Amino acid sequence: MKSKAINIGILGLGTVGCGVVKVIDENHRVISNKIGSPLNIKKIADINTSRFRLIKLSKDKLTTKAEEVIEDKDIDIIVEVIGGIGVAKRYVLSAIKQKKHIVTSNKELMAKFGDQVIEAAGKEKIEVRFEASCGGGIPIIRPLKQCLAANKIEEVIGIVNGTTNYILTRMSEEEKDLKEVLKEAIKEGYAEADPSLDIDGFDASYKIAILSSVAFQTRVNLSNVYREGIRGIEQKDIEYARELGYKIKLLAIARREKDKIEIRVHPTLVPLTHPLSNVHGAFNAIFVKGNAVGELMFYGQGAGALPTASAVVGDIIELAQRIKKGETASIYTPLKRLKVKNIALIESRYYFRMKVLDQPGVLAKVSKILGEEKVSLASVVQKGSGGSLAEIVFLTYQVQNMKISRALSQIKRLKVVKEIGNIIRVEVEAGL
Amino acid sequence: MKSKAINIGILGLGTVGCGVVKVIDENHRVISNKIGSPLNIKKIADINTSRFRLIKLSKDKLTTKAEEVIEDKDIDIIVEVIGGIGVAKRYVLSAIKQKKHIVTSNKELMAKFGDQVIEAAGKEKIEVRFEASCGGGIPIIRPLKQCLAANKIEEVIGIVNGTTNYILTRMSEEEKDLKEVLKEAIKEGYAEADPSLDIDGFDASYKIAILSSVAFQTRVNLSNVYREGIRGIEQKDIEYARELGYKIKLLAIARREKDKIEIRVHPTLVPLTHPLSNVHGAFNAIFVKGNAVGELMFYGQGAGALPTASAVVGDIIELAQRIKKGETASIYTPLKRLKVKNIALIESRYYFRMKVLDQPGVLAKVSKILGEEKVSLASVVQKGSGGSLAEIVFLTYQVQNMKISRALSQIKRLKVVKEIGNIIRVEVEAGL
Repeated sequence: MKSKAINIGILGLGTVGCGVVKVIDENHRVISNKIGSPLNIKKIADINTSRFRLIKLSKDKLTTKAEEVIEDKDIDIIVEVIGGIGVAKRYVLSAIKQKKHIVTSNKELMAKFGDQVIEAAGKEKIEVRFEASCGGGIPIIRPLKQCLAANKIEEVIGIVNGTTNYILTRMSEEEKDLKEVLKEAIKEGYAEADPSLDIDGFDASYKIAILSSVAFQTRVNLSNVYREGIRGIEQKDIEYARELGYKIKLLAIARREKDKIEIRVHPTLVPLTHPLSNVHGAFNAIFVKGNAVGELMFYGQGAGALPTASAVVGDIIELAQRIKKGETASIYTPLKRLKVKNIALIESRYYFRMKVLDQPGVLAKVSKILGEEKVSLASVVQKGSGGSLAEIVFLTYQVQNMKISRALSQIKRLKVVKEIGNIIRVEVEAGL
Repeated sequence: MKSKAINIGILGLGTVGCGVVKVIDENHRVISNKIGSPLNIKKIADINTSRFRLIKLSKDKLTTKAEEVIEDKDIDIIVEVIGGIGVAKRYVLSAIKQKKHIVTSNKELMAKFGDQVIEAAGKEKIEVRFEASCGGGIPIIRPLKQCLAANKIEEVIGIVNGTTNYILTRMSEEEKDLKEVLKEAIKEGYAEADPSLDIDGFDASYKIAILSSVAFQTRVNLSNVYREGIRGIEQKDIEYARELGYKIKLLAIARREKDKIEIRVHPTLVPLTHPLSNVHGAFNAIFVKGNAVGELMFYGQGAGALPTASAVVGDIIELAQRIKKGETASIYTPLKRLKVKNIALIESRYYFRMKVLDQPGVLAKVSKILGEEKVSLASVVQKGSGGSLAEIVFLTYQVQNMKISRALSQIKRLKVVKEIGNIIRVEVEAGL
C-alpha cells in the first residue's frame, strides 16, 4: 500500500532552506519510515532565482511567489526559513490563516512576535514548531517543553551564538585582538560582513527570549532583555581572566525567582571548572537547572545548514505524524507575564580593571569608595604596566549592579585613576 | 470549570517511586497547568509496608497488592518503578492488557523485553514511555526519537553509569586503588553493597541496548552486547593514561555502519580534549552523532530519586496530555533486526602494558610479533620499575581485536615477558 504523501512548502532557499532540501533528499527513507508516508517537497519560493540552481528539484516546484506556496491546497506544512521580520511575519500569519502548520527557524520572528504567531495558530487549530530557532541542531525546545515538564525550571544559561564563541575562542587561543580575529572570521564565513547581529548580542538576546518564554511559560518583551556585546573585550581581559581561573564567554542568562525573572546577555567570566568554559569554537551549549532534574547541559552545533535543518526536519516529521494520525492541535492558553527584574537590581560578582598612578595610597582611596558602597573584594591583583602607571585587576563578591556602578563612577573622578577598563560579570559556579 | 483528574497508579515505592510522589506533590501546579487537569496519584503498591511511611499520602491510597492498582478502573496510567524483571514484567504486561498506558524507569525490563512490551502495547493501542530508563533525568529517548528523527544516527556513546564514573573519577583524583574507593562508595551510598550490576558493566549494557534500539530502530539481543567492567583497572593504568593525554572512562558504545551495528561496554581511554573526558563524579553524558546534526552531547545526573523522577513525571505529563486530547496510540511497527558485528572483527586503538626483563633485545622481540600481526604502534613508553624488570606501555593505531589478541597471546609466551597488564581500548577522537 502506498500511502498519501505529506506535502510541504518551503519559504526561503538560503543556507537553512538548502539544508532542509538536502536532508529530506538524503534521508528520505528514514524520514518516510517514521512518518509512514512519503514526505514530498511540493513547492519552494524564493525571490532570488539564482538560488534555484543550488538544489536538484524540478522547475515546476520552484517559484518566486510565496503566495503560490502558501495558498497551495495540497500543502499541509509551511516551512519558513527566510529569517528576519520583514516578509516572514506576514507570510507566516497568512499561512496560518490558510490552516497550514508552521515550522520555522526564525529566532527574530519568534522572539518578537512568538506569542502573536502561536495565538493565531491556536485560533486556526494548527501547530507551530520552532526547535531550530535556538541552538540550531541542539534539541532544546522539545526537551524543555516535554522531557522537563515536571520541573520548575530555575535557570537557563547558554552559549547560544557560535560566531562570538568562535571569536572569543580564537582570541583566547591565538592571543590576537578582537578586530583581527573578526576580520578573519568574516573572511572564513564564521561572521557576517555586518557582524552586529552576533557581536552586539542581538542574536543571543532573541534566543534567550525564546528559551525563557518556553522555560518559564511567560511572555518576554525583548526590550526587557539586557544586552551587552563583545566589542569591548580586549586581549588583556582574556589574559587576566585566565590568570584568575576563568574564560570569557558571551552568556545568555535567564533565571527565575518566584514571580520575577532576569534575562540578560553579556560577556561573562566563567570558571574553568564549569563545563560552559569548555565549549570551544562555533559550538553552542545550553545549561538548564530544574528543581527535580538538577543541572543539565545540551551541547552541539548551534548553526550551519545541516544541523539547523536537522531540527527543522525533526519538527516537520513530528507534525507529519500528527497529520497522519489526525491529531488535533494543542489548545492555546495565553502565557502569563512574569515581571522582569531591572538590571540595576541584579546581583553578580564582577571583574574590573583600572589604570592608576603608580604611587602609595592609591589602592586605599579606591578601596575606601568600594567599601562605602558595600562592594566586597574577593581578589585584587596589581599589574606593573611600566612607566608611572600601574594596572589593578579587581574581583568582587556578589553585589548589586547599581552599587558597583555608583562606586565606579566615584572612582573615575579620583585624580589618581587614569582609566577604568572593562567591567565584566562573573557567573555560574563550578557545577556539574 | 474543574476538569476531571488524570489518575495514575504507582508500582514500587523505592528511591524512584518516592521521588515521583515528591515531584508530583511539589510541582503539582506546574504539572496540572500543563496537563489542563489535576494529576492524581490514585494508588501505590509496594510489598514492603515500611516504605509507606516515607511519603505523606492517605492510607487508602496504599496497598501491598499490585493487582489493586493494575485493575483499578479509574486509573489511566501505570507507573512501574519496581525495577528488575521479576514481578515487574508480569505487572507491566498485565497492566497493558487492562489498557493502561505505561511509564517505566526499568532499564533491565526494556533492554531484555522492550520489544515484547511495546508490541503488546501496540495491540492494545496504548502507549509505553521509558525516558527514565537511560541516563536518569537526561532527556535522551525523546530527543533521539523526535528531535533527531531526520538523521541517520551513526553513533551513540555514553557514560551511562554514575557509580563506575564516580569510582574512576575518585581513583583519578585521589590516586587510590579501586578496592579502596569502592568500599568508600558503598559506604556513601554511591555503590550498592553488591556492586556487580554497575562495576561489571551490566547496567551500562542495558542502557546502551535500549539506546541502540531507539537510535537505530532495531531489536537488540542483550547477549550480543560485548561487556567488560572496570574491576581490572589499576591506579597505574590511570596514571599512564594521564601521561599519554587520556582519562579512563567506562563507555557504552553503539555504532552503525550500513546494515551492521556494533554495541559494546568497556573501559576506554578517552582523550583529555574530548568532552566525555570532563564528565566527573556520578554525572552521566551521552554523545550522539547524526548525519545531519553532527555531534551532540547531553549531560546531567544519570541517577538519583529526583532526576529520575523528573523523567518519569515528564512521561506521565505527555501521556496525560494525550489522554486529555483523546489522541490515539502510535501504530506498532516491528523493528528490524540489524546484524551485530562480532567483537573480534571490531577495530580500535589499544593501550596495553607488560612487564619484561630489563635487558637488551626485549622490545625487538615484542615488536616483531606485533609487526607480524600488523599491529602498528603509535607510541611506546618504557617505565623503569626497579629491579630486573621494566614496564613498557604501548599505544597502537587502529587494529582488529582479533589481531591484537593473537599478537598478545604469542607475546605472553616469550620468556622475557613476565606479565601482560591491562588491555584497554582507546576511543573517540578529540571532537566537539
